[in-house]
Amino acid sequence: MKAQATEEEIRAVCEHIEQLGFRPHPLPGAQRTAIGITGNQGEVDRGNLASLSGVAEVIRVSKAYKLASRDVKEEDTVVRFPNGATIGGRSLAVIAGPCSVESREQTFAIAEQVAAAGAQFFRGGAYKPRTSPYAFQGLGLEALKIMAEVRARLGLRIVTEATDSESLDLVAEWADVIQIGARNMQNFSLLKKAGRTRKPVLLKRGLSATLEEFLMAAEYVMSEGNYEVILCERGVRTFADHARNTLDLSIIPALQRVSHLPILVDPSHGTGRRDSVAPMARAGIAAGADGLIVEVHNHPESALSDGPQSIYPEQFAAMMREVEQIAPIVGRRLERGVTAAAEASRP
Amino acid sequence: MKAQATEEEIRAVCEHIEQLGFRPHPLPGAQRTAIGITGNQGEVDRGNLASLSGVAEVIRVSKAYKLASRDVKEEDTVVRFPNGATIGGRSLAVIAGPCSVESREQTFAIAEQVAAAGAQFFRGGAYKPRTSPYAFQGLGLEALKIMAEVRARLGLRIVTEATDSESLDLVAEWADVIQIGARNMQNFSLLKKAGRTRKPVLLKRGLSATLEEFLMAAEYVMSEGNYEVILCERGVRTFADHARNTLDLSIIPALQRVSHLPILVDPSHGTGRRDSVAPMARAGIAAGADGLIVEVHNHPESALSDGPQSIYPEQFAAMMREVEQIAPIVGRRLERGVTAAAEASRP
Amino acid sequence: MKAQATEEEIRAVCEHIEQLGFRPHPLPGAQRTAIGITGNQGEVDRGNLASLSGVAEVIRVSKAYKLASRDVKEEDTVVRFPNGATIGGRSLAVIAGPCSVESREQTFAIAEQVAAAGAQFFRGGAYKPRTSPYAFQGLGLEALKIMAEVRARLGLRIVTEATDSESLDLVAEWADVIQIGARNMQNFSLLKKAGRTRKPVLLKRGLSATLEEFLMAAEYVMSEGNYEVILCERGVRTFADHARNTLDLSIIPALQRVSHLPILVDPSHGTGRRDSVAPMARAGIAAGADGLIVEVHNHPESALSDGPQSIYPEQFAAMMREVEQIAPIVGRRLERGVTAAAEASRP
Amino acid sequence: MKAQATEEEIRAVCEHIEQLGFRPHPLPGAQRTAIGITGNQGEVDRGNLASLSGVAEVIRVSKAYKLASRDVKEEDTVVRFPNGATIGGRSLAVIAGPCSVESREQTFAIAEQVAAAGAQFFRGGAYKPRTSPYAFQGLGLEALKIMAEVRARLGLRIVTEATDSESLDLVAEWADVIQIGARNMQNFSLLKKAGRTRKPVLLKRGLSATLEEFLMAAEYVMSEGNYEVILCERGVRTFADHARNTLDLSIIPALQRVSHLPILVDPSHGTGRRDSVAPMARAGIAAGADGLIVEVHNHPESALSDGPQSIYPEQFAAMMREVEQIAPIVGRRLERGVTAAAEASRP
Repeated sequence: MKAQATEEEIRAVCEHIEQLGFRPHPLPGAQRTAIGITGNQGEVDRGNLASLSGVAEVIRVSKAYKLASRDVKEEDTVVRFPNGATIGGRSLAVIAGPCSVESREQTFAIAEQVAAAGAQFFRGGAYKPRTSPYAFQGLGLEALKIMAEVRARLGLRIVTEATDSESLDLVAEWADVIQIGARNMQNFSLLKKAGRTRKPVLLKRGLSATLEEFLMAAEYVMSEGNYEVILCERGVRTFADHARNTLDLSIIPALQRVSHLPILVDPSHGTGRRDSVAPMARAGIAAGADGLIVEVHNHPESALSDGPQSIYPEQFAAMMREVEQIAPIVGRRLERGVTAAAEASRP
Repeated sequence: MKAQATEEEIRAVCEHIEQLGFRPHPLPGAQRTAIGITGNQGEVDRGNLASLSGVAEVIRVSKAYKLASRDVKEEDTVVRFPNGATIGGRSLAVIAGPCSVESREQTFAIAEQVAAAGAQFFRGGAYKPRTSPYAFQGLGLEALKIMAEVRARLGLRIVTEATDSESLDLVAEWADVIQIGARNMQNFSLLKKAGRTRKPVLLKRGLSATLEEFLMAAEYVMSEGNYEVILCERGVRTFADHARNTLDLSIIPALQRVSHLPILVDPSHGTGRRDSVAPMARAGIAAGADGLIVEVHNHPESALSDGPQSIYPEQFAAMMREVEQIAPIVGRRLERGVTAAAEASRP
Repeated sequence: MKAQATEEEIRAVCEHIEQLGFRPHPLPGAQRTAIGITGNQGEVDRGNLASLSGVAEVIRVSKAYKLASRDVKEEDTVVRFPNGATIGGRSLAVIAGPCSVESREQTFAIAEQVAAAGAQFFRGGAYKPRTSPYAFQGLGLEALKIMAEVRARLGLRIVTEATDSESLDLVAEWADVIQIGARNMQNFSLLKKAGRTRKPVLLKRGLSATLEEFLMAAEYVMSEGNYEVILCERGVRTFADHARNTLDLSIIPALQRVSHLPILVDPSHGTGRRDSVAPMARAGIAAGADGLIVEVHNHPESALSDGPQSIYPEQFAAMMREVEQIAPIVGRRLERGVTAAAEASRP
Repeated sequence: MKAQATEEEIRAVCEHIEQLGFRPHPLPGAQRTAIGITGNQGEVDRGNLASLSGVAEVIRVSKAYKLASRDVKEEDTVVRFPNGATIGGRSLAVIAGPCSVESREQTFAIAEQVAAAGAQFFRGGAYKPRTSPYAFQGLGLEALKIMAEVRARLGLRIVTEATDSESLDLVAEWADVIQIGARNMQNFSLLKKAGRTRKPVLLKRGLSATLEEFLMAAEYVMSEGNYEVILCERGVRTFADHARNTLDLSIIPALQRVSHLPILVDPSHGTGRRDSVAPMARAGIAAGADGLIVEVHNHPESALSDGPQSIYPEQFAAMMREVEQIAPIVGRRLERGVTAAAEASRP
């Protein structure tokens, strides 16, 4: 659409697309709104569309991913939250917290420290996809409620993983961002269902996903009408044995060339080793990532999961100071200062 | 349990385990029944158990996988079907059919040919997990009904993939074997749900799954009480670009050392190329696999999915003749001759 | 060249190519001789060449590899040895022996047993490329001399690795086949030097080599005038941890589609585990390989290198019986019966 | 040795070790000198050694790599050059230049620009290990002479690759640092020969080398008496297809934990894409690397090799400004200002 296109013109174009039997996807940007079209088999007649009022151009997207592509929407996607926090755009987003919510005390102890150090988002596992059926599987709804309290008291927005249809409903109700884990990156039913919620989706790259498969997974969410997808590189599986996974930072500039979606880095799963987390967090920001998701624990040695890769709150604070200094070199800034005052109600 | 333990003794031991607050898993073999115990935190008191009538030995399994381990059950698992077909044991199992069920005509045309060539099982996708949300996603229930007709008319047992909770219910109702695809190998909710059905589960190895992760996925199914899990190697993801995936046949002897579960080979997804299917099918059987799952299509060039890796019915028949000759060299036999007469009713 | 082209016509075409400033590579086959041309920048004028006597066709090869390509030479390459043994063609080649030549006694003890079991070639390391500089590096020339005695007494042809310029000279002098190891697959100086010898070269695939890189390494040897290159799949490096390497048997049909060079399988390095060797040897032959190279040791538990993957002579004999039975199913045969009488002199 | 141990005491200990039939490796650090011992089979008698004058402690190193290990030498190795440049230590080292030396003009044009932007080292290929035997293989000695002129005129120290025994002699004579390429990382003969020169060795990680194999390759060089080994991460081979290789930055902190050797990053080969070079260079420095090696070309579109991954001189200058700003955040500094005046003679 033209930069000066009105709401009405946009609506009219969407209606026209629906009448053709296709699905319109309005993707607003700071400068102008793009409207993606899906559901067509073969070519759409461009002539008619081009002649509608407010339409600047009709572009055919040859890539397999459409709505996730920069061809459809040139401007970077910025996901905005009630507390003023954003993911994407100039400001770096930092999500921190324990692998699993283990208790109210542990959760608040960690949350207070990561908030004090400048994180705007809190992560904590309520539903844990564990390799073993006999391992701790998370506190479920109880964990969601504890984290809702964290939001109410500390102003941190909540990011937590949904592992199936049931947990997705609850996560969408209680949290601010629905995380889809690496092992579910191609759980297409779950992706589609997440696409029918109206909460942002944090999509982790699968252990052996190519860039195209990663964006196709985002496309599954977007094709259902939820355009707020946040990508996350968390390491891929290779022969290398000095780290739990091989963190593939070069996907950051590669994704930014072809997609408008924000991309975060998870140096905790990406390395699996406490003393590699800060170096790789710095590296991720220096490579141009939009932010970080980091596991922090006050007693990692007794954590119920992922202890060896969880950093101490003091290490997190030190890391944040380094990230803050790197940010302006890559045209970013780290905005701290989430206040509980600014944020008391349910999402 | 001792070889001569009675049904009652087995039941009594199971009840005793339940009273301890744990879960008993009776795993019958040709010689004797093993009873797995899960749900315990830490060590189970052996003395008491050992003293129960009919108990031969109490063994602690140190591996992460328990019920899937040969330590729990030494004898190979053999999954038996109403038409006399088996998966596991001396007789090779062959599952063949198109990637997707596209129509009644196509399905019967292919089914007749693979039955004539000696397959005992028919495969056909009803619910397709596709990389793109815009690609053909399968005919769903209609496909299941067509395949039930194939079973009724031709006696072939039906293997088809469930991709989520909804399709799992339908597949469990209409088919004989529930396939869990590679991309869902760590969809733990789906695995648990499959474990609560009473249909055998064909579990495909994930694209970057280690042997232990593969068996832990089987363990998820088994821990819910369904012990009929059939493993399937279908290629892993590597740097190699001469094939769609790298078929890792060396996992066959490695699995057989540590697990009693049957293992099949999928040379179609394992290579992605029609002219590599027969060589790798032969190789799989020669390596000791319990059978094959192969994509066969009468018009692969116009298949709605996986055309380039689908072989022609004549190629399938030739491959079966080769497999039949290799079988006795590795202590197996290929039993053809499924008859419609032997099999007319619903599963 | 035409099938009925004379020696003189072939020579005349070669001379013509040399006069153009290029290098001719006559590649004789059972039916007809192909002449590869290298050294040209850009297109060669076809018209003139096509008009020479005996020329059937002038073909431009668009692949990166030329002389290794089936486009240049359609017929399979068969490497022939004085004792009547061949590599390539209908007859399977089996190379067996210890990882390292450790002593005269050990060498003869093993050689006699592998000869009795039907191997036509003996392998034994004289120069060992070891990961550690402090590990046993081989007996060098002494080992070469011991193996020459093996050939003289038992008629087995000798295959051994050259690791650098110096050892290459010695191996070319004393052995029948020069092995280039996986770690040297892209040691281009060594490849070129091997190309200037007149002994067949057994080229092992590098740990992370693509099919094209593998054939380009063969091309390095061939471009220097040595056309007797034998390829060998010995496993690639992946995330999989149940085997030392991941044996990629699917490269066999893939190579056979594009190249005329013979391809062997090394199930010893390919798996790193004694009890996986026979299954993968059978699988390799069933997949269509031209033969095997296998580590056999009479006391593997005390071997100076690669003990865990060396099989016992009895296991080798059993494996040979299985291979012999699989051979006719894939259009091959296993010819045993190398006799010392037929072979007493130096190569 | 104790911090205050004298030269004589060090010499006496070395002589004692030689008398035992072993090889002593004195490794001087800023605080104290360590003496590695190799050549022993089994345990060395500690008692005697510990009682020698100046000896602080006798430590058994259980890792496979000894001299490369931090157990033997705790302090970081700093390699020092005549022009005051260093590799290792607080000051970042930057090596820049074209993939291949193509001509005197091209070489000087690029060298002047990288020197002006702050590089202390110049790289340029004289001997090129190319995948194809038909591709440009480098200008050889002529290229070495051109680079020696670059050193004389601009003060840049010269880094260039040796591919075999012959080129190693020439590179050792004409250049300041001998590069061993990724494909030769396990060319043990070449490593040993490089270990007998007295020029620092830049060792690139092989395409599928583990951390241990990488350090064992360094150990090969060091075991021959050359302790100035500089490691270089340049990307490993994985399934990922958005970059030429997958740059594994997490090996930087992992190496620094176990080894005292400096580690550089090569973002050019690591990504293979011009627009990913600066992001990954920044990331490498932020992760803690000791410096960079970068391909810069004034006309990359017409470069004889590696054009797509070579950056323009202006891009290099911009990258250097970013690196300069990141350096102090990780406790480093970028020292520019190599002056031709300070450096006019042969190495």
